[in-house]
Amino acid sequence: MTRKILMHVGPVTIDYEVLAAGLRGDTGFTSQEFIYAMSYSMKFLRKLMGADQSYQPFIIPGGGTSAMESVTSLLRRGDKVLVVSNGVFGDRWKQIFNRYSVAVDVIKAEPGEYVKPDDVEKAVKEEKYTLVAMTHVETSTGVRAPIAEIAKRIRDKVELIAVDGVSSVGAESVKTKELSIDVYLTASQKAIGVPPGAGLLVLSERAVSRLSDESVAGYYLNLKNWIDVMRNLEDEKGSYFATLPVHLIFMLAKAFELIEKEGLENRIKRHERVAQGIRAGIESMGLDIVAKRPEAYSNTVTAVMVKKVNPAEVLKAVIPEGLELAPGVHPALAGKYFRIGHMGWVNQNDVITTIAVLERVLKRLGEPVNLGEGVRAVQLTFT
Amino acid sequence: MTRKILMHVGPVTIDYEVLAAGLRGDTGFTSQEFIYAMSYSMKFLRKLMGADQSYQPFIIPGGGTSAMESVTSLLRRGDKVLVVSNGVFGDRWKQIFNRYSVAVDVIKAEPGEYVKPDDVEKAVKEEKYTLVAMTHVETSTGVRAPIAEIAKRIRDKVELIAVDGVSSVGAESVKTKELSIDVYLTASQKAIGVPPGAGLLVLSERAVSRLSDESVAGYYLNLKNWIDVMRNLEDEKGSYFATLPVHLIFMLAKAFELIEKEGLENRIKRHERVAQGIRAGIESMGLDIVAKRPEAYSNTVTAVMVKKVNPAEVLKAVIPEGLELAPGVHPALAGKYFRIGHMGWVNQNDVITTIAVLERVLKRLGEPVNLGEGVRAVQLTFT
Amino acid sequence: MTRKILMHVGPVTIDYEVLAAGLRGDTGFTSQEFIYAMSYSMKFLRKLMGADQSYQPFIIPGGGTSAMESVTSLLRRGDKVLVVSNGVFGDRWKQIFNRYSVAVDVIKAEPGEYVKPDDVEKAVKEEKYTLVAMTHVETSTGVRAPIAEIAKRIRDKVELIAVDGVSSVGAESVKTKELSIDVYLTASQKAIGVPPGAGLLVLSERAVSRLSDESVAGYYLNLKNWIDVMRNLEDEKGSYFATLPVHLIFMLAKAFELIEKEGLENRIKRHERVAQGIRAGIESMGLDIVAKRPEAYSNTVTAVMVKKVNPAEVLKAVIPEGLELAPGVHPALAGKYFRIGHMGWVNQNDVITTIAVLERVLKRLGEPVNLGEGVRAVQLTFT
Amino acid sequence: MTRKILMHVGPVTIDYEVLAAGLRGDTGFTSQEFIYAMSYSMKFLRKLMGADQSYQPFIIPGGGTSAMESVTSLLRRGDKVLVVSNGVFGDRWKQIFNRYSVAVDVIKAEPGEYVKPDDVEKAVKEEKYTLVAMTHVETSTGVRAPIAEIAKRIRDKVELIAVDGVSSVGAESVKTKELSIDVYLTASQKAIGVPPGAGLLVLSERAVSRLSDESVAGYYLNLKNWIDVMRNLEDEKGSYFATLPVHLIFMLAKAFELIEKEGLENRIKRHERVAQGIRAGIESMGLDIVAKRPEAYSNTVTAVMVKKVNPAEVLKAVIPEGLELAPGVHPALAGKYFRIGHMGWVNQNDVITTIAVLERVLKRLGEPVNLGEGVRAVQLTFT
Repeated sequence: MTRKILMHVGPVTIDYEVLAAGLRGDTGFTSQEFIYAMSYSMKFLRKLMGADQSYQPFIIPGGGTSAMESVTSLLRRGDKVLVVSNGVFGDRWKQIFNRYSVAVDVIKAEPGEYVKPDDVEKAVKEEKYTLVAMTHVETSTGVRAPIAEIAKRIRDKVELIAVDGVSSVGAESVKTKELSIDVYLTASQKAIGVPPGAGLLVLSERAVSRLSDESVAGYYLNLKNWIDVMRNLEDEKGSYFATLPVHLIFMLAKAFELIEKEGLENRIKRHERVAQGIRAGIESMGLDIVAKRPEAYSNTVTAVMVKKVNPAEVLKAVIPEGLELAPGVHPALAGKYFRIGHMGWVNQNDVITTIAVLERVLKRLGEPVNLGEGVRAVQLTFT
Repeated sequence: MTRKILMHVGPVTIDYEVLAAGLRGDTGFTSQEFIYAMSYSMKFLRKLMGADQSYQPFIIPGGGTSAMESVTSLLRRGDKVLVVSNGVFGDRWKQIFNRYSVAVDVIKAEPGEYVKPDDVEKAVKEEKYTLVAMTHVETSTGVRAPIAEIAKRIRDKVELIAVDGVSSVGAESVKTKELSIDVYLTASQKAIGVPPGAGLLVLSERAVSRLSDESVAGYYLNLKNWIDVMRNLEDEKGSYFATLPVHLIFMLAKAFELIEKEGLENRIKRHERVAQGIRAGIESMGLDIVAKRPEAYSNTVTAVMVKKVNPAEVLKAVIPEGLELAPGVHPALAGKYFRIGHMGWVNQNDVITTIAVLERVLKRLGEPVNLGEGVRAVQLTFT
Repeated sequence: MTRKILMHVGPVTIDYEVLAAGLRGDTGFTSQEFIYAMSYSMKFLRKLMGADQSYQPFIIPGGGTSAMESVTSLLRRGDKVLVVSNGVFGDRWKQIFNRYSVAVDVIKAEPGEYVKPDDVEKAVKEEKYTLVAMTHVETSTGVRAPIAEIAKRIRDKVELIAVDGVSSVGAESVKTKELSIDVYLTASQKAIGVPPGAGLLVLSERAVSRLSDESVAGYYLNLKNWIDVMRNLEDEKGSYFATLPVHLIFMLAKAFELIEKEGLENRIKRHERVAQGIRAGIESMGLDIVAKRPEAYSNTVTAVMVKKVNPAEVLKAVIPEGLELAPGVHPALAGKYFRIGHMGWVNQNDVITTIAVLERVLKRLGEPVNLGEGVRAVQLTFT
Repeated sequence: MTRKILMHVGPVTIDYEVLAAGLRGDTGFTSQEFIYAMSYSMKFLRKLMGADQSYQPFIIPGGGTSAMESVTSLLRRGDKVLVVSNGVFGDRWKQIFNRYSVAVDVIKAEPGEYVKPDDVEKAVKEEKYTLVAMTHVETSTGVRAPIAEIAKRIRDKVELIAVDGVSSVGAESVKTKELSIDVYLTASQKAIGVPPGAGLLVLSERAVSRLSDESVAGYYLNLKNWIDVMRNLEDEKGSYFATLPVHLIFMLAKAFELIEKEGLENRIKRHERVAQGIRAGIESMGLDIVAKRPEAYSNTVTAVMVKKVNPAEVLKAVIPEGLELAPGVHPALAGKYFRIGHMGWVNQNDVITTIAVLERVLKRLGEPVNLGEGVRAVQLTFT
């Protein structure tokens, strides 16, 4: 079966209109077309992030992890960082900062839970942190954290707040300016629906003022090296520090154009509806969702606990049915779950297909599933 | 004029067969197709680098600069590094290492020259260096260094030798194994002829044995974090550290397939012939080439000194003629030159076009050019 | 919603691997690549048609109707033709022949029925016909005729038998040689899964021997003008009569390559399974299928009678749900039905999507549909 | 060498922006996008033809020859037709009409010449013709006929005038309305720069009034069967007679959009400049052009007489140099010439490349060519 859908956590199923925008054999980084695509993309990135003109957008090579590491551009030797971790990608903040001469404290939640706002508030009262680093939607468990509430509680107690929005930007409500967050970041291959290859972030003025030669950052991911390039390109002037992913930027600009056409609010609602459909289907099959409470459900990732079958077998068995899903990666739940990514250009038809394939495959592999109940539940949700 | 050629230093004109290989809306990093494309690409990368089975290939997100920075994965606090710099990208080695707790010495050549093997040998005799970092072809001036001779002179006097082959791999003779070089690196958008988005490198066993938690490297560009992923993918097993540029890898694998079909020797000869044509055309117009001696001429980049005109005007004027060239970036020659990139899928027809457009544009802008002499010189070269 | 599926009667949803094969800006009809693609395609066409080396394949510009009209190349002034019509495209045979100086008799079936083999046999016994023209699957009603039985009954009583396989070739069992049929034809945009632009047919030796300047045919669709071109191209020699659709031929060759990889038997089984799923879903919603008996069900087109709603409203309402269906075109059933095409690269997921969208849309528009029953029926079929 | 240019008479080198417009896997002929693309294309076709609202545009499957044959829709049994032939494609008018019950007279010119307006005028004075059929640019010899002058002389003496503009529309001045021509036709793969697959024509009101069931035309190419479809689609209403080449229409609409952006006048001037460059290069090599006088030179095709070498050898030898040319097809000049097509997205760089390759190849094969003189002549032309 050649035609598939990719219900993954990134890359995800990509619209061919986006992919075709990268079909350019003759366009360099000094061309007006590229410069315009960058300028447009940076301007749109602010809107996508709920940021205003006071924020500086960056589009740099790499992905989510490199964008996270670029936050070291704001830190100096000896700074104290608090990491609020709800899973593997929360822990990644810690692993990154541990490579640098900064002190790192971590508050962790159980898998399926998020760290309570109370606990974060308590931590920042007890200790003076330069930076609090959080995760909006934890990709390893599909848990969405109450970023707004936490931000409100800690905003005036810490210098910088950074949010990993890798699995939220473009699919969840993101209010960088309103919450006065200093760094909001994402990656091209997630809810934006472009191939992997770029990290995208916005920096508050406070964050920008911290860029300096004294930061602990290295070279390539040091935002101080990129800021003039970003400003020049936004002003439609050619500029170079290291080569940007030219073809990807054309795809990004096309995706942003399509997002603008759909409307950001509509896009978020679409993700919400799709996520509801996925959960309705999963629950009707009697399976548990890793995220433990409805407030923790995300619009983009649903992690699913299996009962009898091996999740690796599920992932293998859905492939010939035209579906690719994502493996579970949280070590505490190893061998117990798989993930369904539902972001980007995903639609209701993808939900029906996913649940239909899962019903058949899970039943075949031995889960106690009643064929037809999952798809029926989805249909009722979509009415 | 919509159809152009891109005689740039990267990205370069790309064959649409390569671009079309990335047209996949439904393929994730866990898919067999991707895993196979990575496995094939890593195996072919060894051949491209003149490396053997003892070398470990890496294909990581980013480009040339990030690949250079990943060499910090081999260094520990206090290590001494010698940088051999022939221009802007030689200096970049220094700028990178300066962000880390290592000591850096630099030997520099005048623009258009390369550092003499004697001088490198003398330096490594006087001081014990963990690493000597060099540049094969200096992209800012088009100067090719005598890597083989330098390597032979210093091999037994230093622990590690790293070569930036960004503007050489795929277009110049590269003999990593024969010269016992520890790190040879390049980027996807240069002579390999793929869009920008990946750094490619091979590490000797000696280099691999230096990967450790004690290195000065950060996280994303830390090869210790990537090595298991690379080994697993080469063995056709799915693996994840951070998201690889899936679509770009499909293009890379297609480019490697085409390189294999053309034959690496033929490809290098093609670049040689093309470079000869470019130089014949430029010289017949009475213009000087930045590289000062024939031994320093490269197969991939020709930097051209202008006499009367402003090179920025030249770059602007060639665009409506269907040609995009690269600006000069060496600060010592600012405003005095431009660059012609000739790598990847470049052919003799591109040479004729480039020289024809330059003749007309330079004459129009006031250089003393005799129309027809440049293209005639190219024709005589190609007979 | 940008991503759609096209459950139409042609063009149908096309795999991007097929579409990408046409991305060639530089290939003329004299190029070896084109000549090879034609040669390969003609050879494969024989297999697809169940023909052997004694049959002459043709791939000519146009589509199904032009391929039908090219059958006039076999007729001479005054010849008698019998048309066996089960609907709009059966009648099309008559409309075509009526433009020429031949005598045409027609036997017709009610919509949803096919003309009985007995009746055809009787007709050819009563009258001497040069040609009997039939339709394998009538696209207007989705009715499949018992071609094999009819052919066996009439084979020795008529000179030539021509079958319109537009909605069957590639999805139903086609046995041109075994049944000694003289002309079997199809179009690129149907079960072969390529964009519209070519008619494809095979001619028996008997049919080839009828090509002459005395035929009633015109010029462009006169197979006598094409036969040498076809023979030359199959022998990998360049040849020209009128310009062939070069880019489409590259897509056709890629589609044939994918069909060969899937296996023709597997492909037919896939269509069968998909058709069963569609019918199970439709019937579980309490809707009638136009084809009146199971023997008349086709693997490629299901025509669906609505009860209360306007079928034009259904077609309009499914579009924003990411689905495009085909209108009913049989005048006797005007305003009473719509069609679902299920051919080409169609898969089980497309069936679930189609039935899910139809359930919701039909219910919303007022049909008495129980949500979830259609998709459940499909699931049970696919277990 | 993978990257080529196609200096052919159709298909020609196609811009990838045009090709990418056809990358749609999910769009049927009932979709709004298709209907809009058809509507836009028909409206633009009038402008391209120099026609006004009183003309009816048609875009039908096939190409130039099928468009020519569709003119039979205007003829009735016994009508008299005058064919004015300057070569192979002029003769094609005759071959077509000979298949129908109409009387055909032909006036012919020597190869390289065109039939004099005097001679046409004389012919239509001596005999009453329903239709005079001419060729604007004779593709077999590159000869451009003085259509305007002929049309003025004969307009009031014949009922219908049809012009084959296959190698002129989009690249030469076309004044259908001003000259009161009844049928002007072309094909998608010529100066419009789209893959082959459609014939395009406009009909005057007088021509439209001749469409009837009494015409001699067949079925598929009978414009009476298409006219309602064309009118409906122009009015953005879905309509069907036989399947249109959906994907090609998207490419056509994109090409028309690019032509509109370039400006039709600019496009014609570009073709003129390119043709001058080609001729300057050819003449400077001492080779003769088949078109005998400057008034007969066309903007789109240059036929070149060779002296010593075999033209088939030339065509073969240019291929590995990245160039594809067209063979000579005029029987009177068999083995003595080849053709250079220069239409569509052709630019000055293609001219330099073509002449450069030809210089080298012709010299290598034994023509007395001085390397460098051809390209110099082109450069002087382009200053």
